[in-house]
Amino acid sequence: MNKRLLLISNSTNAGEPYLGWCGEMIKDFAEKHNVTDVLFVPYAGVSMGYDAYEQRVAAVFDTLGLKIHSLHRADNPVEAVKQAQCVAVGGGNTFHLVYELWRLGEMKLIRERAEEGMPYMGWSAGSNVACPSLKTTNDMPIIEPERFDCMNLVKFQINPHYTDFFDPKHGGETRQDRINEFLKVNQDINVVGLREATALSLEEGKLRLIGRNNPLVLFKYNQEPKHYGLDSDLNFLL
Amino acid sequence: MNKRLLLISNSTNAGEPYLGWCGEMIKDFAEKHNVTDVLFVPYAGVSMGYDAYEQRVAAVFDTLGLKIHSLHRADNPVEAVKQAQCVAVGGGNTFHLVYELWRLGEMKLIRERAEEGMPYMGWSAGSNVACPSLKTTNDMPIIEPERFDCMNLVKFQINPHYTDFFDPKHGGETRQDRINEFLKVNQDINVVGLREATALSLEEGKLRLIGRNNPLVLFKYNQEPKHYGLDSDLNFLL
Repeated sequence: MNKRLLLISNSTNAGEPYLGWCGEMIKDFAEKHNVTDVLFVPYAGVSMGYDAYEQRVAAVFDTLGLKIHSLHRADNPVEAVKQAQCVAVGGGNTFHLVYELWRLGEMKLIRERAEEGMPYMGWSAGSNVACPSLKTTNDMPIIEPERFDCMNLVKFQINPHYTDFFDPKHGGETRQDRINEFLKVNQDINVVGLREATALSLEEGKLRLIGRNNPLVLFKYNQEPKHYGLDSDLNFLL
Repeated sequence: MNKRLLLISNSTNAGEPYLGWCGEMIKDFAEKHNVTDVLFVPYAGVSMGYDAYEQRVAAVFDTLGLKIHSLHRADNPVEAVKQAQCVAVGGGNTFHLVYELWRLGEMKLIRERAEEGMPYMGWSAGSNVACPSLKTTNDMPIIEPERFDCMNLVKFQINPHYTDFFDPKHGGETRQDRINEFLKVNQDINVVGLREATALSLEEGKLRLIGRNNPLVLFKYNQEPKHYGLDSDLNFLL
C-alpha cells in the first residue's frame, strides 16, 4: 500500500499565526484522503501540557473543517490508533515524544497504520519521528527514551527547522557542523535539511517538496550538500 | 576529599585561537595541583578523529607546559585512569562522548577518581559530563548511548555555550525555551547557563565563576532566571 505522508518542518513561522502558513496544505491533505477526524498525538507538548496543546491545535483545525481528538484522552489508545482516519503528530520536544510513544506502546502501532496507507501528518518533532530515528532532532534531550528508533516511514533523516544562519559572535557548532557529525557516525543515512515554511509530501509514491520557495538541503556523507527546490523529483530518496 | 573541578563553557571564542581564551586558567589549575601530565579524553571529537584531536590539544597544552596522553591510545585504559594526575575531557559531540564512556566502562572510573580529589577539567561536552546527566547538552543525538547518566560531580546541570541570542526570522525554540522544557520535566534540578568565555571553578569547596565578565544564568523551575557574575558566591548550588 502506498504511504500518505505530510511531513512539515515547523508549525509557526516567525511573526505568523500558529499553523498559519501550512493550514491550506493540511486541508488539502485531509480532503484528498476524505479525512474529517484526526487523531492528534500531543506528547511533544511539554511546556503547555497536553490539554492546552489539543485546544490550540483544535482551534486551527476547526477553521480547516477538521475535528481532532487527542490520544492522551482516549479511553482505549490502542483502539483509537487502530480506528484513526488520520494521525497528526504535533511538534515540541522530540525526546519527550519518543519517550511517550515507546512507553505507551504506540510507536509501532502508528507505524503499522501508516505503512498500511493511513494518512500521517506531523510537524517538527512529528516529522522527525517518521524517520528511522530521532538522531537529527535539534531538541534538548530532557528525558531519556527507551530507544532512539522511530517509525522509519522514510529511510532518510529530516532535520526540521533547518537553517544555515549562525551568530558570528558565537563559537558553538552550526547546524551543518552537527549534521556532518551525524553523517560521520551514520554514513549510509542521508539527511534532508527541511527549511521553515516547507514540507515533504509523499502521495502515490511521489515525494515532493511543498510550501514556500525555500529549497531543501540534502546532506550525504563526504559529499557537498545539494539543494532541491519545489519542482524537484525527490523519488531517488525513497 | 574536596573535588577539584574546572568546567569550561567552550574551547573557542569566535575569531580567537583554539583554547586561547582559557589557556591561562588551565595552566593555573594544573600548577595549583602540581599537574604536569594530563590524561586526555577525546571521545567527543567526532569530526576530526581522535588522533588529530589529541594533536590539536597537545599543541596548545605544550605552550602551557603540560604533556597530554590520550586515553584512546592507552594500552590499559583502566590503569591509565587510575594513575592519572589529572583528566581533561574535550568538547565535541556529547552523545558520542557519553556513548564511548559507558561502552568502555570509563564513566564510573573517572567519576571515582574525581570524587577522590583528582583534578578534573572539561570544556563544553567535557563540562556537561561532570553533571548528573547529558540532558542539557545542545548537541545532536547522533548516537544512542547506553544511558544519559553522567558523572554527577556537581548536582546541577550546565548548559554550555549558553546564549540568549535568537534569530528573529526563525521560528524554532530559543535556548531558554529548551531549558524551560528541561525544568518542566526535571523540576528539582537547576540549570546553569554558562556563557562562552566563562568557566566554573571548584576549589577547596568553593564554587566560582571565572573567565570574562559574562554572568551565568541560573534557571530554576517556575522562577525567573537569575544572573550571577564573577564575584558571586555560588556555594548554594553545591
